[in-house]
Amino acid sequence: RYALVVCGDIAVYPSGNARPTGGAGAVAMLIGPKAPLVLEQGLRGTHMENAYDFYKPNLASEYPLVDGKLSIQCYFRALDRCYAAYRKKIQNQWKQAGNNQPFTLDDVQYMIFHTPFCKMVQKSLARLMLSDFLSSSSDTQSNLYKGLEAFRSLKLEETYTNKDLDKALLKASLDMFNKKTKASLYLSTNNGNMYTSSLYGCLASLLSHHSAQELAGSRIGAFSYGSGLAASFFSFRVSKDASPGSALENLVSSVSDLPKRLDSRRRMSPEEFTDIMNQREQFYHKVNYSPPGDTGNLFPGTWYLERVDEMHRRKYARRPV
Amino acid sequence: RYALVVCGDIAVYPSGNARPTGGAGAVAMLIGPKAPLVLEQGLRGTHMENAYDFYKPNLASEYPLVDGKLSIQCYFRALDRCYAAYRKKIQNQWKQAGNNQPFTLDDVQYMIFHTPFCKMVQKSLARLMLSDFLSSSSDTQSNLYKGLEAFRSLKLEETYTNKDLDKALLKASLDMFNKKTKASLYLSTNNGNMYTSSLYGCLASLLSHHSAQELAGSRIGAFSYGSGLAASFFSFRVSKDASPGSALENLVSSVSDLPKRLDSRRRMSPEEFTDIMNQREQFYHKVNYSPPGDTGNLFPGTWYLERVDEMHRRKYARRPV
Repeated sequence: RYALVVCGDIAVYPSGNARPTGGAGAVAMLIGPKAPLVLEQGLRGTHMENAYDFYKPNLASEYPLVDGKLSIQCYFRALDRCYAAYRKKIQNQWKQAGNNQPFTLDDVQYMIFHTPFCKMVQKSLARLMLSDFLSSSSDTQSNLYKGLEAFRSLKLEETYTNKDLDKALLKASLDMFNKKTKASLYLSTNNGNMYTSSLYGCLASLLSHHSAQELAGSRIGAFSYGSGLAASFFSFRVSKDASPGSALENLVSSVSDLPKRLDSRRRMSPEEFTDIMNQREQFYHKVNYSPPGDTGNLFPGTWYLERVDEMHRRKYARRPV
Repeated sequence: RYALVVCGDIAVYPSGNARPTGGAGAVAMLIGPKAPLVLEQGLRGTHMENAYDFYKPNLASEYPLVDGKLSIQCYFRALDRCYAAYRKKIQNQWKQAGNNQPFTLDDVQYMIFHTPFCKMVQKSLARLMLSDFLSSSSDTQSNLYKGLEAFRSLKLEETYTNKDLDKALLKASLDMFNKKTKASLYLSTNNGNMYTSSLYGCLASLLSHHSAQELAGSRIGAFSYGSGLAASFFSFRVSKDASPGSALENLVSSVSDLPKRLDSRRRMSPEEFTDIMNQREQFYHKVNYSPPGDTGNLFPGTWYLERVDEMHRRKYARRPV
């Protein structure tokens, strides 16, 4: 028995600073037995808050209301709490198996994050290293956390806007970022934000930038975040069989054409994009109309909105496959 | 480990025919082991369609758009399909146990329905009897389906608006309605529609109108419907232990004060209600305001909206318990 999970969204903002972070995309995933990626059970660390960090209260507009500063603090706080909960759970599992080691980022081979924008993710990996550092004993080999000793007395919740610390952390975590996270940002870098599918776009990017052999047997850490807010830290275990025809090899080759798919997009100027967005604002919630635009530009097989009738009923059509 | 399910909604309509069917309510349910009501596994019959029967496309208004005739057809068609799927599943289970009997309404002691309005439910029970009748062999004892023989050649999907049939069905099913369904309509009759909690309000009504002894060991059939549409037919098995202090007796006594709770409401005139609804329309989506109205009328412990600030952020307060 299989399940199909489809996540996708359109991230659009009014003209201004946030607009270039926008994007659109969808990821479809098949869930079932003998999977090449397995969720590690009993390890999910979750954190929730009632927060007005990013929301859409103005129903006459497609654009969100964003409290930028609050949003970043909420994300970091959720990351800290979820990571702490995850570590506690996995250390308990290890303890029961007779292993008293602390869990650190050394225990994940790859680390992916919900990605509002790419710099946020680099800072997030750095924050996880800060968590590791603050919970390590002071006699831990210093070259692992080089340049961080000056910050040992800080509390996590006091560090959301400490620029000296940010700088030291980004430096200390740069190698790790390049090894464990950078490849996962391929889609975010080239396609912007996709909201619900953001994290799974990172997963697809990661799989498309490594061979099945490289991935086999590794643990992928994952941080999922939704404004409002609900967040989880969890992990996948990649199967060990990377042989030709294996489920893992099939999965990896299924996403190997990501660069080709991105390259097949049509480039347009910021002015053209602005025109389309202005048009979109005008037609948002309108009834008895057909959206303008040349459907000849759509990929083969694309479903598109053909008409909204006077009762707001939407009718879709499809480009030939 | 327990789960808490809370369902609730506010059903409001513009002034006119539909307004009196409105209502508001919430039902909270504790899900866990050793439950006095157990969902019968493997028997859920589900039907889904893409339908514009009832929806809220006008985001500037709290009121829905309803295609009344379509909505009733959708509900009946979903009921027919779900019941057929449920019967097929339970008959398969029985067959594997060596029992080749057909499933009919005789096999449920109580039958509850999602309730847009009460007459709809009486007609729905009648339709289930029609399904039973049409799939029975013609030599079935005729007094069970008295007055229906003339309709034996009809197809279910041709009977949504057959008034002669409706009349004959309501007559044939009246005894069954009084025995198996009427008590479940107590809340719907006195409190109107509650949308998501409608079916579970029926369950609470049923439990409040029967003793634990009467309910013990019975099967409760349930039809859940959501416009758009998704519907399921499923069943609960009531535990056999109705002794004092049993889970069943506790559950039944927990809802025994339903009439008292309804009686504690404040009666107001249609004119007052209309005034409040007009006020509500005016404040819908407004920012930087506090809703008018005397909070002294709220039940002790009620949470209420205190203020919506200029960023649409909502602040709630609570009446003393």
